[in-house]
Amino acid sequence: MYVDLGNGLASVASPGVSRESLERLDERVARAHERIERGRKEDEFGYAAFDLPHVTDASEIEAAVAPFDASDAVLTVGIGGSALGAATIAEALDLADTHVLDNVDPAEVRSTLADLDLGDTVFHVVSRSGTTVETLANFLVVREAFESAGIDWTERVVVTTGEEGPLRELADRHDLPTLSVPEGVPGRFSALSSVGLVPAAIRGADIEGVLAGAAANTARGEISGSLFETPAYAYGAATYALAERGATVDAMMPYAEDLESFAEWFAQLWAESLGKDGLGQISLKAVGATDQHSQLQLYRAGPRNVMVTFVRPRERPDCAIPETDFEALSYLGGGDLGTLLDAEFEATEASLAAAGRPSVRVEIDRLDARGIGDLLYGMELACVLVGELMGIETFTQPAVEWGKRAARGLLGAEGDFPEAEAVGEKSRLAVPPEE
Amino acid sequence: MYVDLGNGLASVASPGVSRESLERLDERVARAHERIERGRKEDEFGYAAFDLPHVTDASEIEAAVAPFDASDAVLTVGIGGSALGAATIAEALDLADTHVLDNVDPAEVRSTLADLDLGDTVFHVVSRSGTTVETLANFLVVREAFESAGIDWTERVVVTTGEEGPLRELADRHDLPTLSVPEGVPGRFSALSSVGLVPAAIRGADIEGVLAGAAANTARGEISGSLFETPAYAYGAATYALAERGATVDAMMPYAEDLESFAEWFAQLWAESLGKDGLGQISLKAVGATDQHSQLQLYRAGPRNVMVTFVRPRERPDCAIPETDFEALSYLGGGDLGTLLDAEFEATEASLAAAGRPSVRVEIDRLDARGIGDLLYGMELACVLVGELMGIETFTQPAVEWGKRAARGLLGAEGDFPEAEAVGEKSRLAVPPEE
Repeated sequence: MYVDLGNGLASVASPGVSRESLERLDERVARAHERIERGRKEDEFGYAAFDLPHVTDASEIEAAVAPFDASDAVLTVGIGGSALGAATIAEALDLADTHVLDNVDPAEVRSTLADLDLGDTVFHVVSRSGTTVETLANFLVVREAFESAGIDWTERVVVTTGEEGPLRELADRHDLPTLSVPEGVPGRFSALSSVGLVPAAIRGADIEGVLAGAAANTARGEISGSLFETPAYAYGAATYALAERGATVDAMMPYAEDLESFAEWFAQLWAESLGKDGLGQISLKAVGATDQHSQLQLYRAGPRNVMVTFVRPRERPDCAIPETDFEALSYLGGGDLGTLLDAEFEATEASLAAAGRPSVRVEIDRLDARGIGDLLYGMELACVLVGELMGIETFTQPAVEWGKRAARGLLGAEGDFPEAEAVGEKSRLAVPPEE
Repeated sequence: MYVDLGNGLASVASPGVSRESLERLDERVARAHERIERGRKEDEFGYAAFDLPHVTDASEIEAAVAPFDASDAVLTVGIGGSALGAATIAEALDLADTHVLDNVDPAEVRSTLADLDLGDTVFHVVSRSGTTVETLANFLVVREAFESAGIDWTERVVVTTGEEGPLRELADRHDLPTLSVPEGVPGRFSALSSVGLVPAAIRGADIEGVLAGAAANTARGEISGSLFETPAYAYGAATYALAERGATVDAMMPYAEDLESFAEWFAQLWAESLGKDGLGQISLKAVGATDQHSQLQLYRAGPRNVMVTFVRPRERPDCAIPETDFEALSYLGGGDLGTLLDAEFEATEASLAAAGRPSVRVEIDRLDARGIGDLLYGMELACVLVGELMGIETFTQPAVEWGKRAARGLLGAEGDFPEAEAVGEKSRLAVPPEE
């Protein structure tokens, strides 16, 4: 991973951070780095994520999926951190026929199942606790779809779950291929484990390359504890400083379609880790060059509360643009789409700088197994650094519990759920007015 | 469209708007309504969009696509407003085999073309000016792919463009089926025209229903010029008031997977229309229930700069949850996914209210042709109302020109592009440091 902070400096943009402020901040980065290193060495909750590139056993995953054919479609049944990492890796590696059921929308579930040839589909059900309501409801529907099609579902499933819980019991009962969610790693930090790697493994992709890329993230930058030497810390520290100076929004804008899921993974990482105590920075997905025709007007001329994070691979595959009979576009003919995309990237980056709007550039060598591993690991490290600098608890997500309990109450689960009563007390101002 | 502002009131949330403030604001809404009505009647630039449900000729579109089979795949080649409306309508109607090339990413273009059976594919190329560089570059690549496959591309294409320009000339030269982009309607307001309806028409969907739903949006609410009677004005006025009170972010969170593209269409509508003069509100996509496991932590416990817009269909298709052998989940068995999704929606809405965070509820009858027409029209009307209340020029997007000119200069187009020179002057702070 390579980071360039030049366009986030106060000499270019407002909000912007001065070099002097970055130098002062670097002392706090060094202390945060010590904290992260201690947590990693002692396998503390959350910090354990930074050992995954070394402890995830690719051969164990490959053995679990060995019964399947690399041409099988894969359907991941999970939600949140149990789905986004898998979707990100599969998309980054451009793996066809990988699907995700991460919502309990009846229209979507029906149409996803209708479009699949279940006889050639493997489903991967993922829930650490084994009790996630959306995942288990979808699991029940998917299992019945296999049964209705006359297919033995126990032959077409991989389970990834914790050491105990209903899903583990079910897997044991049916002797299903089962992988363990790593201990001490919250879902949004688990992409570099079985949680994120199983679909890619089923499709025969290079999951060892993903882990090697992640391991190389810190090696290349010589993880020194300085933001001026370690790219992940450069990104985290600059983002923290820009947020403090008013950039409450981080627009994550990869110039690569196959990083669209990555931007959604990043939004979760950022929101659940950092949205606490009235603090945090909201991250949203944009995709270049497409969203130059959608979001750019706002980034350049709207409120000064947005920083843009550009991400791009330094190398791209070729795709020649044929010679053209449009006279006005003859300068394009004989060129390449990648050259065009990169020109638009450079132009958009410069366009924000010319308007005094901050951006940060993140690059990887290319979008392959190593590249996505590098990027995921780097952004996890950046996120934890920001959490340390903010002084919050990065690895929990307490604010989502209220709604979960209310939903359980509404659905008539056994137990006492006072939250469900508040749902009925809703304040109303209906337009058009209700009769 | 139905709107409920109850959870955006100051009695519930902070930021929130009091009923008294809404009543005062309603006087300004009435004046803005007069302005909008005058613009519509006089076919002024932009305002003309509100006549599309009456002037778009569905039978002309259907005639243009009559040569094709409803089982043909559709590939839309366009970008921004020339792609998002079509994607939104196709997804909302759950139309299979509709694809979009809205980026010049070589990896994506290659894999999209590789996955299509071109002999059974129609491509729809859309550009008002006929000079949009991304669209024309992709057109050249797609055309060559057809030729390489030995398919007469002129038999597999529909063109939607303005009355003149290179694309119009090309269409005339080859006598291609050609539809006109409506006059006086910016791209992001053109979904309810050939720009947005052609792919759905090719797939045999009910495009007249979409237009009828749009026409009904104002009819049902008796477009009175009062935010208390007209749902679109209720949404626009409340959003404006909440933004003024600190909600600089509008999280558009449909509880329907097939409204995911709608949320991206909305983000463009909002960003390009309202991101001006240092003003504007950033809109981002979230999807319920999925993003309860991603964004909700931040919305509930992060900075008080987010309002959430919930959108849901009041009716959903059935999808039964089978009886379960998970004891802890027996309360789900025999239920329906839609009931579960709606319980999660109600719980999440109440969860934000309980934390004093603002939200607005938008509903449609169901997610069908009429429903999506209703929603698109209502949100366009809401957007223009916000623009009037802000006192900005809603229908232009001047801030994107700089980057376009810089890119042209970088690519060696003929002409004088001083912007391109600024690209080389980039400030740098590389991590790891460059040698």
